Amino acid sequence: MQFHHHGYVSGDPRVDPAAGIGLDRPDELPDEVDVLIVGSGPAGMVAAAQLAQFPGISTRIIERRGGRLAIGQADGIQARSVETFQAFGFAERIIAEAYRITEMAFWKPDPENRANIHRAAVTPDDPTGISEFPHLIVNQARVLDYFAEYARNSPGRIVPDYGWEFVGLEVAPPGAAGSGAAGDDEGDEPGVLPEYPVTVTLERATGVGVGAGDASHAVALDGELTGERRTVRAKYVIGADGARSKVREAIGAQHVGAQSFHAWGVMDTLAVTDFPDIRTKCSIQSEAGNILLIPREGGQLFRMYVDLGEVAADDRGAVRQTTLEQVIAKANDILHPYSLDVRNVPWHSVYEVGHRVTDRFDDVPLHEQGTRTPRVFITGDACHTHSAKAGQGMNVSMQDGWNIGWKLGHVLDGRADPALLETYHAERHVVAKELIDFDREWSKLMATKPEDLGDPAELEDFYVRTFEFPAGFMTQYEPSMIVGSQQHQALATGFPVGKRFKSAPVSRVCDGNPVQLGHHHRADGRWRIYAFADAATSRADAGADASALASWANWLAAASDSPLAVHVPDGGSFDDVFDVKVVYQQPHGAVDLMQAPAVFRPATGPFGLTDYEKVYAIDPEHDIFEERGLSRDGVVVVVRPDHYVAQVLPLSATEELAEFFRGALLAR
Amino acid sequence: MQFHHHGYVSGDPRVDPAAGIGLDRPDELPDEVDVLIVGSGPAGMVAAAQLAQFPGISTRIIERRGGRLAIGQADGIQARSVETFQAFGFAERIIAEAYRITEMAFWKPDPENRANIHRAAVTPDDPTGISEFPHLIVNQARVLDYFAEYARNSPGRIVPDYGWEFVGLEVAPPGAAGSGAAGDDEGDEPGVLPEYPVTVTLERATGVGVGAGDASHAVALDGELTGERRTVRAKYVIGADGARSKVREAIGAQHVGAQSFHAWGVMDTLAVTDFPDIRTKCSIQSEAGNILLIPREGGQLFRMYVDLGEVAADDRGAVRQTTLEQVIAKANDILHPYSLDVRNVPWHSVYEVGHRVTDRFDDVPLHEQGTRTPRVFITGDACHTHSAKAGQGMNVSMQDGWNIGWKLGHVLDGRADPALLETYHAERHVVAKELIDFDREWSKLMATKPEDLGDPAELEDFYVRTFEFPAGFMTQYEPSMIVGSQQHQALATGFPVGKRFKSAPVSRVCDGNPVQLGHHHRADGRWRIYAFADAATSRADAGADASALASWANWLAAASDSPLAVHVPDGGSFDDVFDVKVVYQQPHGAVDLMQAPAVFRPATGPFGLTDYEKVYAIDPEHDIFEERGLSRDGVVVVVRPDHYVAQVLPLSATEELAEFFRGALLAR
Ligand SMILES: Cc1cc2nc3c(=O)[nH]c(=O)nc-3n(C[C@H](O)[C@H](O)[C@H](O)COP(=O)(O)OP(=O)(O)OC[C@H]3O[C@@H](n4cnc5c(N)ncnc54)[C@H](O)[C@@H]3O)c2cc1C
Ligand SMILES: Cc1cc2nc3c(=O)[nH]c(=O)nc-3n(C[C@H](O)[C@H](O)[C@H](O)COP(=O)(O)OP(=O)(O)OC[C@H]3O[C@@H](n4cnc5c(N)ncnc54)[C@H](O)[C@@H]3O)c2cc1C
Repeated sequence: MQFHHHGYVSGDPRVDPAAGIGLDRPDELPDEVDVLIVGSGPAGMVAAAQLAQFPGISTRIIERRGGRLAIGQADGIQARSVETFQAFGFAERIIAEAYRITEMAFWKPDPENRANIHRAAVTPDDPTGISEFPHLIVNQARVLDYFAEYARNSPGRIVPDYGWEFVGLEVAPPGAAGSGAAGDDEGDEPGVLPEYPVTVTLERATGVGVGAGDASHAVALDGELTGERRTVRAKYVIGADGARSKVREAIGAQHVGAQSFHAWGVMDTLAVTDFPDIRTKCSIQSEAGNILLIPREGGQLFRMYVDLGEVAADDRGAVRQTTLEQVIAKANDILHPYSLDVRNVPWHSVYEVGHRVTDRFDDVPLHEQGTRTPRVFITGDACHTHSAKAGQGMNVSMQDGWNIGWKLGHVLDGRADPALLETYHAERHVVAKELIDFDREWSKLMATKPEDLGDPAELEDFYVRTFEFPAGFMTQYEPSMIVGSQQHQALATGFPVGKRFKSAPVSRVCDGNPVQLGHHHRADGRWRIYAFADAATSRADAGADASALASWANWLAAASDSPLAVHVPDGGSFDDVFDVKVVYQQPHGAVDLMQAPAVFRPATGPFGLTDYEKVYAIDPEHDIFEERGLSRDGVVVVVRPDHYVAQVLPLSATEELAEFFRGALLAR
Repeated sequence: MQFHHHGYVSGDPRVDPAAGIGLDRPDELPDEVDVLIVGSGPAGMVAAAQLAQFPGISTRIIERRGGRLAIGQADGIQARSVETFQAFGFAERIIAEAYRITEMAFWKPDPENRANIHRAAVTPDDPTGISEFPHLIVNQARVLDYFAEYARNSPGRIVPDYGWEFVGLEVAPPGAAGSGAAGDDEGDEPGVLPEYPVTVTLERATGVGVGAGDASHAVALDGELTGERRTVRAKYVIGADGARSKVREAIGAQHVGAQSFHAWGVMDTLAVTDFPDIRTKCSIQSEAGNILLIPREGGQLFRMYVDLGEVAADDRGAVRQTTLEQVIAKANDILHPYSLDVRNVPWHSVYEVGHRVTDRFDDVPLHEQGTRTPRVFITGDACHTHSAKAGQGMNVSMQDGWNIGWKLGHVLDGRADPALLETYHAERHVVAKELIDFDREWSKLMATKPEDLGDPAELEDFYVRTFEFPAGFMTQYEPSMIVGSQQHQALATGFPVGKRFKSAPVSRVCDGNPVQLGHHHRADGRWRIYAFADAATSRADAGADASALASWANWLAAASDSPLAVHVPDGGSFDDVFDVKVVYQQPHGAVDLMQAPAVFRPATGPFGLTDYEKVYAIDPEHDIFEERGLSRDGVVVVVRPDHYVAQVLPLSATEELAEFFRGALLAR
């Protein structure tokens, strides 16, 4: 954690100084905003938390509920999400309070007596060490709390505007500048949009969030509508308003997919039981049906998803009449010979979900794609839904929110062309489709009676074979303006272009601390440029000046076509846009901090202090060059603000590096 | 972290439900309290945090300052203190924001040119892995913030009463019941103390704490006295009011030790420098003098202690006239050929300290010891001071506060006889004396000119030889009513009786999670009884019933002389007084949770749920039986509420276990 460089921070260093709109943010929702986010679920909250790091941009997040989510909804946290939490500064805290999954047990009918279940297999949850972070279970409400805290403590000081229901929106056609802000006439030319082209209608809702004290048996209340309406004009709108999204409806996007839904009786349960794996994640298949058992945070609570089967589209909510008593009775049948003495059910629901993906994730109809840049985006459940069993919903939604969050930050801050916004649909739509395919297969397998499976081990095989999916690491973005080619992939085989940057242990030269390189990547909207040095050290006596690294660093610092020259506003610090770090091949004792090229020791803050935390050495026990397959001739790895590897290049390829950033960012 | 068993906790699980006095705690300081703590430094805050876990006891903590400490004072956090933070629930958070020391560099005059310094040696900070926790540097203010948070979020909901200056106190002699609470006459018999025997005089102070915004160059203000006085009657008083303690004066204790002081110009500095080890802890000895350099949290700030030498008792504050400019100039001289371009000094001070220990740590004069139990205690700097250089002050003070905190909790809660309170002086006075001896030697070495040292390596040798001291692990309590004999030490060589329980990795059976056994020890005032099982497992098919563990567990659960029967109030749960855990010798897959003796699976909370987190197995990669030298025939290890090992016994020694607790606790 870095602080004090702007002057002594006496209190909690997690609270950034307010800046920009954070300095005197109006309590009331203003008439005009840069970004309006609809919905404070995972997708919306991440976008808000990211945009709070861009205090030049006025962002508001509206929510129909009267307050924070209190209980219920999702709880599965993939390792990829924990990496994301690290970037938002709360990984260590949420890990401490969450349940950690280390293995999964598979229970099946006992072949000796099929009326009983028995433990057929236990598999480790992350056999490959896919992340240094664990797989967690914790209520969605706590995830939202932490993002809310981050948004509130960031320079933009964003807090949700509770009690506002989104009713509809209109995007002004080009030339309709009249609907822009009074007195702004730069939009009056034909073909030019007004400054705030999206007009959003909202209605006041009276809902009051369910507090902790009275949460038993209750779902957080939606507000009652009051009829009191108003409009807000926005430059951009993010629809993060869940599966029944009205923003999706307003932009006329088509939600396509399953006609039928799968229904689960889900209950968060406090019970006494003789079932020995009650604190282990279990898939339980018995003659009487199927259960997915998820132990929860805190040591006693667990969630059971009791399978209620497929529900036809014309079911008209009949399945929702399933009572808690019926769900409990069915759970007891399935668990036989074990039993469940339920003492308290703080939350339960019949959760119906179909596999669906929306045809487009923004307001540009497919036939207009490329002719104008989008103004409205949909994220999370608003554009894709999938079974609860693979534990994807909240996780994928957060990646959506982060993706659109930093991109809007870039465009509104003048760092990137609005064309960048087209990559949101392009990148996230593919992810959603792949996920639905995976989820469909997974759900089918889970719901299949054991005797109907071709091979009884099919389920475990699938689980192990597709481990990247449930952990959240299946995403690999295609080449685009922000993802380079894989031409030089051989120089860094462990950092595949388009996949997320997988952290590795290194040693920080200034203080010899063992650290995770990736954990210094905060959700601050900056691009990371990692230079892995060629074999020469930084010691003056070792001819550091003659190294390939030194030439590259000199070019980066001084060349007129360097990204630091081209994409940083005059008078600004390159360090606000690019976080440039070096990793040497030697242990830290062999590296001389003061000999590292100056670009890795930038001046920072009003006192012009030196940032010492950009020069790294290998951790001899886990040589990152070995563990990530890095060329001993050195290599440059560019990482996007959302952790994805954008480019891998040799140290000599300065022109390619410049070109990559010319495509991604604007000259300033 | 365990929660939800009292019903669903929707918000931050670190906030306990209020109970007892926490339910309607008066904002204003009441006239009568059970415990009055004077001073909200480390010693006082830990005591308050511990007592907040005893909501039946009314505790107030007064502080002359108008608000929280903002800046300055100590910053060295030994690993023992981080273990303590773990017990108080904030280790992971403070680690994330602190500076971590992994090595120390020794700079000396360059033999080639003695006008220059050069790096003579680098030693790892904790070569022996004395703790699983790191050695940290973070400002005292943040440590206090976290303890304050814990006190505020604990059932007793304790918050400091700022703006009150302690003026004096009187302890009623036996029989003076008239000064007790109106209407309580149980104290009227001769020889019996009134219920609230300590009358404390306070004066209102007007000080306002220095906020973060205006902290530059300022020390937190002491309040101005207003002349407005009042009295508070207390059962017990803890004097945690620092080196110039008025509580110490009020009980007539003698502060003995050095006539002279050692003075250091200390400055928290933001600077630009070419000194390459500016982010490493350094001892710098040069021809021009000595510096102790301590890198600080946040990445740029560092603290320098510039040696100003010994100060005679009749110096009359002359050394305090040393200006910041003089300190900076001297630092530059010492660093030659490197230099320091100081940009900002948020805090500086001339810190004078003598090696002193008070003759007694409570109000019972030495000649009256044993004839009455103490009512007033002094802790921390109030009873011992030592050089800043060994980084002991804040750390030892916290252990003082914890020690008296749980003991007062026990006595006022009716768990223990007031004689327990005599062990406070007995235990902590020895620690203080040992520490002063260590510190005197250390400081002398540090201040000695290199050429005056017999052997130039003497300093490093001393550093390595005495590593337990700076890490805080030198304490080993003598046998007493709460520390048993070492008769059976051979059964658990890695848990020396009287030393702190050193955690080790184990695997939790219920969920297979790898955990640190010691990290489940919270500062909740409970005693821990760890049963390390004999070789039999808990599997029914392995004859678990016949094991030595099973016999011991049956005795503990059912015998009339078991501590669970003798020391737990009727109708109470033994789990509120004793945390009883088992560790099996097998990996978790070989242990059957539901076959573990019932005493290890107690019912908990209003729903009578099962606590699953008391049954452990070995972590095969770090077999705790190997790592802590535990007998394969099993062994019982008793640990005090403050982490110290109280007793090691064979599983067969049930009578000795009963006897130990009969000595430590009251029958109820
Ligand atoms: C009742 C319920 C139970 C669920 N159970 C599970 C489960 O058991 N397991 C699982 O994995 N996933 C479950 N989910 C799904 C999971 O919570 C989602 O995948 C995840 O929350 C998606 O995040 P999101 O931000 O896209 O949408 P959401 O979390 O749904 O957030 C949308 C937000 O928008 C608000 N909103 C909606 N419409 C408007 C409007 N017109 N105006 C203003 N605000 C609006 C909503 O109040 C909500 O806060 C459940 C969802 C719900 C609603
Ligand atoms: C100015 C200063 C600089 C220091 N610098 C260093 C350093 O550089 N390095 C280092 O290792 N240690 C330093 N120390 C010492 C270190 O802070 C102590 O060892 C440590 O704080 C001891 O904790 P404590 O709780 O015993 O006392 P303290 O932290 O001193 O706390 C005592 C508290 O009691 C309050 N108090 C005092 N008298 C009264 C009264 N009559 N009524 C009400 N409240 C009262 C004080 O305001 C204070 O909050 C410094 C201490 C001070 C005061």
